[in-house]
Amino acid sequence: MSTVYDVTRWTIPGQPGVTAKHDIGAVINSIIADVKARQPNQASKPGAVIYIPPGDYSLKTRVVIDVSYLQIKGSGHGFASSSIRYNAGDTSSWHELWPGASHVKVENTDGHAEAFLVTRGGAPRLSSIEFRDFCIDGLSFTPTQNSYTNGKTGIRIASDNDALKVAGMGFVYLERALVNNGADAFNVTDNFIAECGSCVELTGASQASKITNNLIGAGFVGFSIFAENAEGLLVQGNNIFPRGRSMVHLKTSNRCSITGNRFQAFYPGMIDFEGVNKENLIVGNHFRRVPEGFPPLQAFDNGKDDLYGLIHLVGDNNMVSTNIVSFDVPPSAITPSGATPTMVLVAAGDANFISNNHFVTNTETNHVVLDAGTTNTKILDSGTAAQILAFTTNYTLRPTP
Amino acid sequence: MSTVYDVTRWTIPGQPGVTAKHDIGAVINSIIADVKARQPNQASKPGAVIYIPPGDYSLKTRVVIDVSYLQIKGSGHGFASSSIRYNAGDTSSWHELWPGASHVKVENTDGHAEAFLVTRGGAPRLSSIEFRDFCIDGLSFTPTQNSYTNGKTGIRIASDNDALKVAGMGFVYLERALVNNGADAFNVTDNFIAECGSCVELTGASQASKITNNLIGAGFVGFSIFAENAEGLLVQGNNIFPRGRSMVHLKTSNRCSITGNRFQAFYPGMIDFEGVNKENLIVGNHFRRVPEGFPPLQAFDNGKDDLYGLIHLVGDNNMVSTNIVSFDVPPSAITPSGATPTMVLVAAGDANFISNNHFVTNTETNHVVLDAGTTNTKILDSGTAAQILAFTTNYTLRPTP
Amino acid sequence: MSTVYDVTRWTIPGQPGVTAKHDIGAVINSIIADVKARQPNQASKPGAVIYIPPGDYSLKTRVVIDVSYLQIKGSGHGFASSSIRYNAGDTSSWHELWPGASHVKVENTDGHAEAFLVTRGGAPRLSSIEFRDFCIDGLSFTPTQNSYTNGKTGIRIASDNDALKVAGMGFVYLERALVNNGADAFNVTDNFIAECGSCVELTGASQASKITNNLIGAGFVGFSIFAENAEGLLVQGNNIFPRGRSMVHLKTSNRCSITGNRFQAFYPGMIDFEGVNKENLIVGNHFRRVPEGFPPLQAFDNGKDDLYGLIHLVGDNNMVSTNIVSFDVPPSAITPSGATPTMVLVAAGDANFISNNHFVTNTETNHVVLDAGTTNTKILDSGTAAQILAFTTNYTLRPTP
Repeated sequence: MSTVYDVTRWTIPGQPGVTAKHDIGAVINSIIADVKARQPNQASKPGAVIYIPPGDYSLKTRVVIDVSYLQIKGSGHGFASSSIRYNAGDTSSWHELWPGASHVKVENTDGHAEAFLVTRGGAPRLSSIEFRDFCIDGLSFTPTQNSYTNGKTGIRIASDNDALKVAGMGFVYLERALVNNGADAFNVTDNFIAECGSCVELTGASQASKITNNLIGAGFVGFSIFAENAEGLLVQGNNIFPRGRSMVHLKTSNRCSITGNRFQAFYPGMIDFEGVNKENLIVGNHFRRVPEGFPPLQAFDNGKDDLYGLIHLVGDNNMVSTNIVSFDVPPSAITPSGATPTMVLVAAGDANFISNNHFVTNTETNHVVLDAGTTNTKILDSGTAAQILAFTTNYTLRPTP
Repeated sequence: MSTVYDVTRWTIPGQPGVTAKHDIGAVINSIIADVKARQPNQASKPGAVIYIPPGDYSLKTRVVIDVSYLQIKGSGHGFASSSIRYNAGDTSSWHELWPGASHVKVENTDGHAEAFLVTRGGAPRLSSIEFRDFCIDGLSFTPTQNSYTNGKTGIRIASDNDALKVAGMGFVYLERALVNNGADAFNVTDNFIAECGSCVELTGASQASKITNNLIGAGFVGFSIFAENAEGLLVQGNNIFPRGRSMVHLKTSNRCSITGNRFQAFYPGMIDFEGVNKENLIVGNHFRRVPEGFPPLQAFDNGKDDLYGLIHLVGDNNMVSTNIVSFDVPPSAITPSGATPTMVLVAAGDANFISNNHFVTNTETNHVVLDAGTTNTKILDSGTAAQILAFTTNYTLRPTP
Repeated sequence: MSTVYDVTRWTIPGQPGVTAKHDIGAVINSIIADVKARQPNQASKPGAVIYIPPGDYSLKTRVVIDVSYLQIKGSGHGFASSSIRYNAGDTSSWHELWPGASHVKVENTDGHAEAFLVTRGGAPRLSSIEFRDFCIDGLSFTPTQNSYTNGKTGIRIASDNDALKVAGMGFVYLERALVNNGADAFNVTDNFIAECGSCVELTGASQASKITNNLIGAGFVGFSIFAENAEGLLVQGNNIFPRGRSMVHLKTSNRCSITGNRFQAFYPGMIDFEGVNKENLIVGNHFRRVPEGFPPLQAFDNGKDDLYGLIHLVGDNNMVSTNIVSFDVPPSAITPSGATPTMVLVAAGDANFISNNHFVTNTETNHVVLDAGTTNTKILDSGTAAQILAFTTNYTLRPTP
């Protein structure tokens, strides 16, 4: 029997009226049941590919994936800006209104938050499930289209997993686009994840994963990239644009790399460390901070003021080097009013290493601020003495000549 | 009806004799017309995928794409060196002569320059069109096979656009491979673009785009990568080989990143700034400059001499750091004769930051040259005092110890 | 005739009983013979795509590829940890046992080592063959499952080649996963290559190739990445985890880039230079060294002691800059007993440039050691004077303030 399924050609046994157009979730669950029925032998469970041709598909029933090696694949990431459309006023003359390509419209009527849930108990961990080249669209936010909230999650991976891959996907208008709890060697690459509350969240703990070569932009209270208890995460070569409460938020994560990314933000806390985070590498990134430019969203921010730091460090032995920071915020928009904005804040920790950074600012800023209690920070070639503000004497400074 | 089209199985209504082999352009246009006819409803226009199986296809009619979410996809980038073949002499014993895979032979007989034109008026912008995994071949150059000119353009995107993607493609022997005018979040990744006059051009203006993880090499008068009025372009992780008038040419572009690339060139001006370009980041790249090694092309160059700078900066607050520059040109090949070659030229601008670069040169060079009128340049750990040449006193130097 | 083949639908002429399940190698060879028979014309040999649907396929006969533009493609990289399974004890309750997706089981009965051999004499070089999105599984090691040896090679490319691509693949339990002899513009991207003796080997010589955006981890005596006589190789944005005798091993290779990678290792010699290697760039990487944590493999190592250097340089003008090195090995596990571990060893060579590195170590280490005979090394901002050990006076040191 074929291991290649097409959602438009599948009939749910006993439910011939439920097509992929009406409930792609029910159809995919039925296909997965078929895969499992046809692969009963522990020694041969290669999985299957489920193809989603271009089309608009309602998802009313959550998909539950509990088999390894399943690939769900479409023919295009299909992103379009719903934010622009919802704020555009009269769209009656528009060519099209919605995102498209292989377009899954998340309309759960089953009481579940997720479009796709990946979970399995027992051993081994789920391995090598792939999501490729389709669009998951949360359709609308509530109570307003600019709230970035609707309770919808695109993909949630709930049990420990190995070698999963999310590539070429589009995510739009979901409160949470992609959540992985317990990732090992997770590969998030070449996706377009924008206009979602939060974009990529590695919860629980993870190791040896990577988020590379993506286009990402979250909502004003959500995370573009969040990782807790991560070890050795590589965030590399992404173009991450506004908004996002933060661009990369690390919580008790160690030895992660944030390298070669381009970041643009409307708020402080572009890199945000929560809890103690050690030995992370922040190198070769472009940090751009400007005020919110889109009138419908100018009322919102992430609640942090300009003393929080564009880069907010908590922890030991983090290295911040060879980045450019470009800050261009009108003095009238700086908070607290009259404050001197902080570019890099070492809020707590020992032996952080800040070197060879170039700052371009439209107003006087503190390039580096060391809070009381921080120890052994080294600041090299990252500003003049006047551009460093230390509430401790326990640091070393070599001013930029 | 299916949204999955195969160019080899499509018959143009009323023109059964025009097959994809004879004119894939006419066939794709007919498919697009069908997509539009079948998706008249503004609220549901998910688009389609057009598949090009491996094969040789003449394109006599320009394809015009004016629908979002269209994916045109083949099964292989199909590059082969036409330059080697045309310069090889007798090829009668060769296994094969031409590029291949899903191989579109650009033979326009319709008076148009482009193989693929993407354009639409009105709102919204075209979104999420994808070109994937096929080969666009211009076949020959005129007046000679080494001219890199033939008036042919592979893909030209002419109207403002969002979230378009070009991935896994091959481009060969086109005067202009890929041109995008008005890009937002454009994704050019994993392509093979070589032996084209110019490879990737972002014209007009663009924002938040990326050119990542490609193999690229242009002709001697063309651009490997060109961007004008770009904001926040990420050029990351590419292997860019000769020739190319430049490797990355920025024109009045700001806050772009050129990081983690490997560059090899036969001429000065590897990074070339035209107009005023600000706050760009050039970090972690490998710059290799050698003389042209291919006899048929040794007569050509990009018209720049060795005083132009391998990296030619015009503008403010650009950061050039942590690169290695490897220059190995016989003194007899240096122009003007007897000149001391310039590695980094700051031709104009304020507050450029040049730090922590390592230069390996077979002859005496000026690592950094500051032209008169430049101000506030900082040069740190990028050469001895003797290796810096300043026509101004308005700069700061910390020589490499 | 179609150029799209499906291994499950192909019948070998005269051998109807040999299906892809029984010997996918024989089936693919038969398909290749068909491609060649149908494309006899030197002027039109576009090749074909051979699709491997999800499934378990025995490969008993080596595939020999001698046509350009062939794409062999599956629907998933299918990695699962065989190492964990073999060391797990009773797996009778496991959901599944083996890797999966488009799963090629390497069981050669033809006396050959390779699953796939790419080779052709004459001109031109083979071009643009692609391996995409399937799994090559060596199944078991001998004499024990923890030996990483079985004489099996996944893909060996034996003749000079241009623009080949290996993307989205999984490799597991092969003694050698991927070997390319004579690569030009080779593209290894987005693969999962783990639990193999050696992962990626560029032998002979290569130029302008790239190994980017992969997840890689080799066996204790093999290479994660090996390149000899390479020019301009780009190793960028990979997450490379244990074990691996080395992470990147360069042999007489020049002007390669090792940038933006995350490395974790259990042994010294994470970057290992053999012979004279010049002008290589090692920037923006995260180096993590811990002891072996998996009990069944704690008896093994790569034979190098802690004086070898985590980064072992031999050659001239290499640049090691802006990396973080995190070393956390119990003193009792350091060899030779009582030794002060070496982080960066310059074993031989001139004018190496080591700058702006941050070292985090749980015990006293030598950040940089210069062997006798090394000349003109520059060490900037990479440790205190006490953390540099020089057996020569021919160097320059600027201690980290």
